[in-house]
Amino acid sequence: MTIQESTAEMLPDLEEVLKDLVNQHIPSRYSGMKEMIAYHMGWQSQNGSKNTQGKRIRPLIVLLATQLCGGEWQKALPAAASIELLHNFSLVHDDIEDQSEFRRGQPTVWKLWGVNQAVNCGDAMFSLAQISMLHLGIKVNPMVAYEASVLLNQTCISLTGGQYLDMSFESRDEISRDDYFEMITGKTAALMGASAELGAIVSQSSKMNRNSLRTYGEAIGIAFQVWDDVLGIWGNEQKTGKPVSADLKDGKKTLPVVYGFENNPAIIELMRNTEKDDESIARLIMELEKIGARKYAENVAQYYSNLANKALLSLTNINSEGLQVIKELTAQLIKREN
Amino acid sequence: MTIQESTAEMLPDLEEVLKDLVNQHIPSRYSGMKEMIAYHMGWQSQNGSKNTQGKRIRPLIVLLATQLCGGEWQKALPAAASIELLHNFSLVHDDIEDQSEFRRGQPTVWKLWGVNQAVNCGDAMFSLAQISMLHLGIKVNPMVAYEASVLLNQTCISLTGGQYLDMSFESRDEISRDDYFEMITGKTAALMGASAELGAIVSQSSKMNRNSLRTYGEAIGIAFQVWDDVLGIWGNEQKTGKPVSADLKDGKKTLPVVYGFENNPAIIELMRNTEKDDESIARLIMELEKIGARKYAENVAQYYSNLANKALLSLTNINSEGLQVIKELTAQLIKREN
Repeated sequence: MTIQESTAEMLPDLEEVLKDLVNQHIPSRYSGMKEMIAYHMGWQSQNGSKNTQGKRIRPLIVLLATQLCGGEWQKALPAAASIELLHNFSLVHDDIEDQSEFRRGQPTVWKLWGVNQAVNCGDAMFSLAQISMLHLGIKVNPMVAYEASVLLNQTCISLTGGQYLDMSFESRDEISRDDYFEMITGKTAALMGASAELGAIVSQSSKMNRNSLRTYGEAIGIAFQVWDDVLGIWGNEQKTGKPVSADLKDGKKTLPVVYGFENNPAIIELMRNTEKDDESIARLIMELEKIGARKYAENVAQYYSNLANKALLSLTNINSEGLQVIKELTAQLIKREN
Repeated sequence: MTIQESTAEMLPDLEEVLKDLVNQHIPSRYSGMKEMIAYHMGWQSQNGSKNTQGKRIRPLIVLLATQLCGGEWQKALPAAASIELLHNFSLVHDDIEDQSEFRRGQPTVWKLWGVNQAVNCGDAMFSLAQISMLHLGIKVNPMVAYEASVLLNQTCISLTGGQYLDMSFESRDEISRDDYFEMITGKTAALMGASAELGAIVSQSSKMNRNSLRTYGEAIGIAFQVWDDVLGIWGNEQKTGKPVSADLKDGKKTLPVVYGFENNPAIIELMRNTEKDDESIARLIMELEKIGARKYAENVAQYYSNLANKALLSLTNINSEGLQVIKELTAQLIKREN
């Protein structure tokens, strides 16, 4: 099987589980809340805006990691749905916190329904994520549901901690690479690490496999985020759905910029300017390229991608076809254009 | 034992568990987030503001209900802490959503740290609530932790649903009593119902006792909220920590007002005015008293309080001393002045 074939087989079932969850657990008297969730998940249009679905990478990792450990991926669907809902709850709140008006080219939930309803809608999605994970109690057994829920919530603490750092950094002129990696470890790597680890939990694989899969997931999480940083500056607007160099305009302290802080003082000055016009953005990009910031970030992404593949080598008693598929996914994550 | 003696015995242990939870699960690199939580929980002052602790009524219900069912209340401490954290997470977000600048006479979290950090801080508290409930897996057994977590998250859906309705009602001139009860069933009764039901879950009591305790908790939840509505209009500022008639100024659709909509058209007109001066507030209070809205609300609170006591009668195999204590608590809830 190829990664395309696995995706085509797994994702429609995942979407079914996600929709059932919303329909069964949000009563019709809260229909407006249901609408917001359906819009954010990309199932329903609103005022002419049809939000598109995300890439569902995290739940795919859960399902592929389960298969890799010899488990049935169908049994892991509640865990995969949980991770996707958790990710989306955090996007709804992050969009508020970052004042992002668009996501995937469409207005964000707070932009359409206001901050107050969006905060509350995110909370409901967070609860649904928990309920979905607990469904493992029926699909597998309560002990597995319990262990998976413990992991889920430790991951939530990392997510909020990473977001806390991210917001704290906004008021600082410069941050170090250590600061940056601490922040993305919480914001991105923890959830990808948990996604992979869940595969071992659901398939009741060994403690050692759990650790190796977590390492794998965290490494691809960092590679994924760093690649995202590269796309946020040099990506193609048509493909990313974000305006060109949006991250620079927003003053985001992404890896190329953080590398710039350490290697080119002009970048600190240019980033400090909060009203950046096209000329100062062009100047920033030039200064970043002068010191090889793009190449540096691409190398970091490649390094963590290799690290992820190494972690896969230490797994034992695994399904060899599953290994091939997950390696393909890993390779794709840092070649993607959106 | 009296309710005072039980409270004096139980609450210091609860506070210990709550503080340990925060200290053990929020790493020091997120120290600012820890500060916000400690401030909101009333453990730490901030810029001269020492936030006072809440009344801890919900965790007390968890502990008393456990004892009532013949369980050791100490084993229920993770569940009690979880409920208190869930309640406080929802307060942090509600204060944002209601634009409330003060709570218990002190500035709210969003007022001190901004909306963005407050949204994220609430999310972290939500995660801590989940982690605490899962600790029942160690204190009792994983099956109990699993059942308790399922209940916790069903309750979260009710909370967010009730809050969704509350916000939706803001834009309407009037709402019916049915609307009102639907809203407070989600916002207040569900969590109190879950608190009491948890006592039966932790002590592994019968399914019938679970149901009776849920009914008990939901009924005191409604009585509690309706009494709160009365205090929000006629309460003593020194005791409630809220300005006199704050709920009327804020245009809140509390039960006396909703009763007024149905019985005195002048109230619809008076409530519609968004800039209420002291004179129009005085006029509103007069119109409410003219139709007996205060008496009506007090009777409703008493009715649900009686219903709660009736639910206690259907419990079997219980600790009779525990029954006396929980009845005392019930009686106090609708005579309180803050």
